[in-house]
Amino acid sequence: MPRPEHVLTLSCPNRPGIVAAVATTIFEHGGNIREAQQYDDVETRRFFARITLDHPEDALDVPALRAGLDAVADRFSMQFALRDRAERRKVIVLVSKFDHCLADILYRWRLGELPMDLVGIISNHGRETYQHLDFTGVPFHYLPVTKQTKLEQEAEVWRVIRETGAELVILARYMQVLSDGLAAKLAGRCINIHHSFLPGFKGARPYHQAHARGVKLIGATAHFVTADLDEGPIIEQDVERCSHNDTPDDLVRQGRDIERRVLSRALLWQLEDRILLNGARTVVFRD
Amino acid sequence: MPRPEHVLTLSCPNRPGIVAAVATTIFEHGGNIREAQQYDDVETRRFFARITLDHPEDALDVPALRAGLDAVADRFSMQFALRDRAERRKVIVLVSKFDHCLADILYRWRLGELPMDLVGIISNHGRETYQHLDFTGVPFHYLPVTKQTKLEQEAEVWRVIRETGAELVILARYMQVLSDGLAAKLAGRCINIHHSFLPGFKGARPYHQAHARGVKLIGATAHFVTADLDEGPIIEQDVERCSHNDTPDDLVRQGRDIERRVLSRALLWQLEDRILLNGARTVVFRD
Amino acid sequence: MPRPEHVLTLSCPNRPGIVAAVATTIFEHGGNIREAQQYDDVETRRFFARITLDHPEDALDVPALRAGLDAVADRFSMQFALRDRAERRKVIVLVSKFDHCLADILYRWRLGELPMDLVGIISNHGRETYQHLDFTGVPFHYLPVTKQTKLEQEAEVWRVIRETGAELVILARYMQVLSDGLAAKLAGRCINIHHSFLPGFKGARPYHQAHARGVKLIGATAHFVTADLDEGPIIEQDVERCSHNDTPDDLVRQGRDIERRVLSRALLWQLEDRILLNGARTVVFRD
Amino acid sequence: MPRPEHVLTLSCPNRPGIVAAVATTIFEHGGNIREAQQYDDVETRRFFARITLDHPEDALDVPALRAGLDAVADRFSMQFALRDRAERRKVIVLVSKFDHCLADILYRWRLGELPMDLVGIISNHGRETYQHLDFTGVPFHYLPVTKQTKLEQEAEVWRVIRETGAELVILARYMQVLSDGLAAKLAGRCINIHHSFLPGFKGARPYHQAHARGVKLIGATAHFVTADLDEGPIIEQDVERCSHNDTPDDLVRQGRDIERRVLSRALLWQLEDRILLNGARTVVFRD
Repeated sequence: MPRPEHVLTLSCPNRPGIVAAVATTIFEHGGNIREAQQYDDVETRRFFARITLDHPEDALDVPALRAGLDAVADRFSMQFALRDRAERRKVIVLVSKFDHCLADILYRWRLGELPMDLVGIISNHGRETYQHLDFTGVPFHYLPVTKQTKLEQEAEVWRVIRETGAELVILARYMQVLSDGLAAKLAGRCINIHHSFLPGFKGARPYHQAHARGVKLIGATAHFVTADLDEGPIIEQDVERCSHNDTPDDLVRQGRDIERRVLSRALLWQLEDRILLNGARTVVFRD
Repeated sequence: MPRPEHVLTLSCPNRPGIVAAVATTIFEHGGNIREAQQYDDVETRRFFARITLDHPEDALDVPALRAGLDAVADRFSMQFALRDRAERRKVIVLVSKFDHCLADILYRWRLGELPMDLVGIISNHGRETYQHLDFTGVPFHYLPVTKQTKLEQEAEVWRVIRETGAELVILARYMQVLSDGLAAKLAGRCINIHHSFLPGFKGARPYHQAHARGVKLIGATAHFVTADLDEGPIIEQDVERCSHNDTPDDLVRQGRDIERRVLSRALLWQLEDRILLNGARTVVFRD
Repeated sequence: MPRPEHVLTLSCPNRPGIVAAVATTIFEHGGNIREAQQYDDVETRRFFARITLDHPEDALDVPALRAGLDAVADRFSMQFALRDRAERRKVIVLVSKFDHCLADILYRWRLGELPMDLVGIISNHGRETYQHLDFTGVPFHYLPVTKQTKLEQEAEVWRVIRETGAELVILARYMQVLSDGLAAKLAGRCINIHHSFLPGFKGARPYHQAHARGVKLIGATAHFVTADLDEGPIIEQDVERCSHNDTPDDLVRQGRDIERRVLSRALLWQLEDRILLNGARTVVFRD
Repeated sequence: MPRPEHVLTLSCPNRPGIVAAVATTIFEHGGNIREAQQYDDVETRRFFARITLDHPEDALDVPALRAGLDAVADRFSMQFALRDRAERRKVIVLVSKFDHCLADILYRWRLGELPMDLVGIISNHGRETYQHLDFTGVPFHYLPVTKQTKLEQEAEVWRVIRETGAELVILARYMQVLSDGLAAKLAGRCINIHHSFLPGFKGARPYHQAHARGVKLIGATAHFVTADLDEGPIIEQDVERCSHNDTPDDLVRQGRDIERRVLSRALLWQLEDRILLNGARTVVFRD
């Protein structure tokens, strides 16, 4: 049987001794470092790390480790999070008419690729839009929206997020722009898939823009949501080759494949605590 | 021994019978179609094709074929070019300080990968900048430039192009913006390598822009030169993955590899008559 | 409304005049060539082509065109197939326990990406194995198999194929080796997904083999089924990067993504008549 | 000005406390950990790490650090190497007729991408084979070989390696099979580029094999040389897409691009101490 694991993420101003202090603290409390990744931003002189530790079930004194890390944090002005990997994050998915990203997330979740509790699906379209998708075990919330009812609808969205205790919100081709207020409430825990290779084609209908410009590669971008639309910190991007032969419709179809794999990767990395914010950018400790 | 080959490129308003008329004309004059690629732009209703034909040395009556094609062209309002593949295009390369694209072109040309006559290298830097490159057989023109002398320098560039009979001009990281006048003279026969994935990061220092934005892929773009800088028809693009860990200098280094392979591909395709202009876009008949 | 389309595929010994004869025949019977791709195998001197033609609804006299093509076929020893693109191929999918390829095919089919009639799913596992997949409208056949009952089970498989009129059989991670007899009956119309980059790791547990060898890329291969297992003509392959850090389980998970996209591509190309057999190899006229 | 840096690589049986012990030792002797990567092989229970440390010029007491690490090594049965990054490795390149890999290495070396001293080029072909390459500053050794003189020629090769003090030997398309004896002497410090995606097409003329099999991707493999030809630990691999349209010659040409970039990557990683041997496999700590 695999041993229990915790994951520790941290950041602080860079100065000598951080790794030694953290590693010693972990060791003294019964933890064994399994993976460790770090990044030193030479511009901002800020240090980032992600450490996974395993331990015999009853050897690790978690409160004591946490206290030890608190002491290190004080010394190094360090922010950290310590998480039991057995505790799964609660996730809500927002979706509109196009369900390819949602379908992919559902499938991977059922296969066990995404360690999360899927606590809800919210859509501005009715359940019948997704008649071929199996939502067994996942509450579905139909929250239609118009310009006039946007305020009320977002209040409902927020109520569902709070009541389910969702820690992470995924915009899986949710075609409504979040208000600044809701975006602010979800800062750092809401991921969107943008159907273009940012910053190339912001705004509406990016595949049509790409076609008009005659680009030879199209892409998609997963990013954290901020008030400034299409400008949040980028988490992951990918592209595929296209040609003069592709119509905008072809690009849309091809884009579906890129979007779903880019979003699923970003979601997995967030669930595995691999993404740290670094100002307007991200640090992504890939496997 | 391989048989002689001609390549025929054409475009016209699309209507039934074009392929039959052209294929019949080729057949009647002793040609054998080896490759044929075509594209029908459903928006503009314009038809594009590239046909290579081989033939026993003395079986093809080229003037007669050309006359036959003229007749077809009249009937279908078709523009065409017929080219003996044994005739190599004359090419001039313009370069500034960074010589990675030039070095790659020189190496491929000597290996026989690029069927062209390299009739000159023009630089605004002196010969000593490229001391480790072997220019044997290729005249080198040092044409320094300042804001004050730009007019005169471009006149010299143009003189060299005319006197050598160059049909194709390659800007291989030539860091001077061509004037509208020179760009106009070179319309459709001047290819530039832009060190970004257009239209993502126009303007100066694109790798620094890419780093600041935190993108996860960087790229390069080969395009025809037009008066509107960074907006000419795109020929080829490629990208490579980068990460938070890459400094702007790392991106520059990585970019060199992308730039040289993107430019060499575009150059080869142009030499093989694979690129046709379609308004602000290109049709690229890849192998 | 888009005009009706036919697709014509053909092969014959290469000699001058084929394209002219075929194009003229199409034109004379009211067809307009939309796409044309051809390939001339210089080793075998065999010629292959795929042509799509559109036409006003009642302008194309299909029987007359077919008769015209018969005449050309006689002259050039040509084999051809002419297919109305509105007629969808009937397809059966065979699957075992792992359903990621099946799920992907179902999803793309419902989206309209795969122009086919899905006339059956056959599995050696029961319906409950796929409880989260929606089989609405697709008959499911549970045909369990043991060494002792393999003969009878294959007879049943064959009966289902015949009774449904399936023209194409997809082995979507069907983990039973077809007998030579069944393989022979399905020659040229049965596609398998092999979970390795052939010919690298034949046989069982290829991801474990790949891990043991320490390769840096893993892949998958879609190929036509022949009596010689793992040796049928290759249709499509793809790879992804892996590292020392990946366990065999990681490779299996990563492999699922590669397998499903490789198989879906091969299936689509077959449905679009893009794949022609050329001895032990394939000609694939990609878009 | 950048601070001086050392790189530490190590491996040992995995048990708790290694990272803490090493990090503390580095910290106590004035070093600051800049990068750290580690890998825990769950099958063999062996631990691998690569750590780069910087330090103010005179703060690091290298002999004392080395003594401290010796003590840690004793405790954990650890093997380690500590290297001043300012000390460049001495490298010899062996080449035969095809010089695309050599040309690429020379170019990158002169650009400053490869931190090494190139102390010699050995070829079984004469200097005139490489007339367009500039060998300024690099001694060239023409060591022709026949079956009869292989023993003597290898003795000469070995003499050059010893006399130059070369720590690393690169077989850059050197088409002679090393004898077991020479391979043994160079174990762990000789890298070969194999012109196929191993283990796919071992033996001679892999591009012809690939063509005959009709694969859709071709590749190249950089690996350490062992007595068992084509079976040494794999360092890096890459592929490119090919099609039915490619002749063996096309594949050879395309292969040149793959080979040179795969070999240059492997060489760079070795120079940066990113490659650790793990039995028949490698651990590669990529950037």
